[in-house]
Amino acid sequence: MDSQLGSVLITGANRGLGLEMVKQMVEGPHPVRKMFACCRDPDGARAEALQMLAKKHPNIISVVRLDASDLCSIKQCAQQVGSLVGTGGLNLLINNAGILFKGNVQETSPEDMLNTFNINVMGPMNMLKEFLPQLLAAAKASGIPGMSSRKAAVVNISSFLASMGSIGQTYDYMPAVSYRISKAGLNMLTMCAAEELKKDQILFSLLHPGWVRTDMGGEEGEIDAPESVQGMLDVMASLTEKQNGALLDYKGKSIPW
Amino acid sequence: MDSQLGSVLITGANRGLGLEMVKQMVEGPHPVRKMFACCRDPDGARAEALQMLAKKHPNIISVVRLDASDLCSIKQCAQQVGSLVGTGGLNLLINNAGILFKGNVQETSPEDMLNTFNINVMGPMNMLKEFLPQLLAAAKASGIPGMSSRKAAVVNISSFLASMGSIGQTYDYMPAVSYRISKAGLNMLTMCAAEELKKDQILFSLLHPGWVRTDMGGEEGEIDAPESVQGMLDVMASLTEKQNGALLDYKGKSIPW
Ligand SMILES: NC(=O)c1ccc[n+]([C@@H]2O[C@H](COP(=O)([O-])OP(=O)(O)OC[C@H]3O[C@@H](n4cnc5c(N)ncnc54)[C@H](OP(=O)(O)O)[C@@H]3O)[C@@H](O)[C@H]2O)c1
Ligand SMILES: NC(=O)c1ccc[n+]([C@@H]2O[C@H](COP(=O)([O-])OP(=O)(O)OC[C@H]3O[C@@H](n4cnc5c(N)ncnc54)[C@H](OP(=O)(O)O)[C@@H]3O)[C@@H](O)[C@H]2O)c1
Repeated sequence: MDSQLGSVLITGANRGLGLEMVKQMVEGPHPVRKMFACCRDPDGARAEALQMLAKKHPNIISVVRLDASDLCSIKQCAQQVGSLVGTGGLNLLINNAGILFKGNVQETSPEDMLNTFNINVMGPMNMLKEFLPQLLAAAKASGIPGMSSRKAAVVNISSFLASMGSIGQTYDYMPAVSYRISKAGLNMLTMCAAEELKKDQILFSLLHPGWVRTDMGGEEGEIDAPESVQGMLDVMASLTEKQNGALLDYKGKSIPW
Repeated sequence: MDSQLGSVLITGANRGLGLEMVKQMVEGPHPVRKMFACCRDPDGARAEALQMLAKKHPNIISVVRLDASDLCSIKQCAQQVGSLVGTGGLNLLINNAGILFKGNVQETSPEDMLNTFNINVMGPMNMLKEFLPQLLAAAKASGIPGMSSRKAAVVNISSFLASMGSIGQTYDYMPAVSYRISKAGLNMLTMCAAEELKKDQILFSLLHPGWVRTDMGGEEGEIDAPESVQGMLDVMASLTEKQNGALLDYKGKSIPW
């Protein structure tokens, strides 16, 4: 199978898993044609590593400003990307940006709940709505039969912590109530979109990266970002209509709701 | 088994399932000791039926003002109820108030998403946090062994539409994306609370009322409110620690996540 990807957009691309995805997608054996690496502050210190990478691959990587919690910023980003991809559209949208508060029910404030919902659920929802014309354009323009991440797909980065049936295994160590609620909401959003847009041949999938040593995952994480991302890219490349709406881990194993 | 309930609070008690629950809990064969029937506007036309019922049972029913989307209103309600229940605490909190927008992903606005999340998730979350001292008091004061709705329990009214595995069955007829996301979030919140508070012997459970002919369910609903509520009250009366964190329909059948 030719796993070459066309145009890809990644949110939260300046550090952690997002930055590693950009790196492997651009420097791997089958580099993507066009990579839109989005972050909140492209000119700030937190985007230095991404900017260095972009300088090495000026024809592939465009660093684009995007605050996933701000609809206006999402609209601006969509306009900018739209003018660059043209009629070929956007083949793959990866909603990776996310935040986590650790608190249990009693420790979680209304502000924690709303911030987390805003970035982890409203972000991907607004991204999908604003980039839908470009995803539809890609599905039409690609000429590839069936569904795939090379044609038109949305990958939302979820978490094992959103698995309702597995709470007992992780709750004492990591309650993260606002985060779990947001990722359960993201799962539901993704399932709904998968159902609604299958007629347009846009594939939707949810990936759990594993427990990864990033700022979010912490030093105790089980794997490092390169291993997680290599697994996730393999899974993304292998997605077909059979996985539409599925929640898979970075090894391709299905996770129960 | 003695299914007599002590003090019970119901949100959204002025119409639909909430009003029918008040009615059956007060006029059924084993009336509750104290019923706090909460609604947004106790003096308005929408609360007339509830006020008539309260006049028939002045020693049991207290009509209390509560806007489930407003933390300040929840705090006032908790203060008022707290002074009435005293050291016996609150035995059963039923989060029933809810709203539904029907739109699919493309039709759902950020406002629909946030309003629905606010009432259907933040409401029950804030209710739980503000009434927790009274639930803990009830768990201590009751003297009943194990977990039960007579001792200390929270019942959150969820929906079959929140079942991730069943979306294909209902999506075309009722996309209701913001509602599904909110009820999936409510399920997760309830699971987390069940895990966190089992040591305090507070029972948590999620009930699906069936598809019911109310303002929300519409005229095509499969059952009427009296049938749904009779079933739900039977299920509530039979809850033990085995059902802690369970999602059950009004017949007591388990619903998959
Ligand atoms: N690490 C794990 O073990 C693990 C496990 C399960 C799931 N995940 C998921 O994997 C994804 C990436 O996690 P990570 O470990 O790479 O986290 P991370 O190291 O904390 O990085 C988070 C990224 O999200 C960005 N971000 C946060 N809020 C944003 C906003 N409003 N707008 C735009 N970007 C925003 C951050 O940008 P700034 O630098 O500007 O803050 C950063 O690039 C998340 O969705 C997370 O929930 C991670
Ligand atoms: N009917 C069904 O088929 C069905 C199926 C599955 C689940 N459910 C769930 O069952 C519960 C009750 O539904 P229903 O059919 O009785 O709905 P309904 O007839 O539309 O009644 C909704 C109730 O919630 C109250 N409410 C709405 N927003 C509120 C707020 N901000 N603060 C306080 N109260 C508020 C309403 O009060 P106002 O009069 O002030 O608006 C009303 O009392 C809901 O949680 C619903 O999601 C229903």
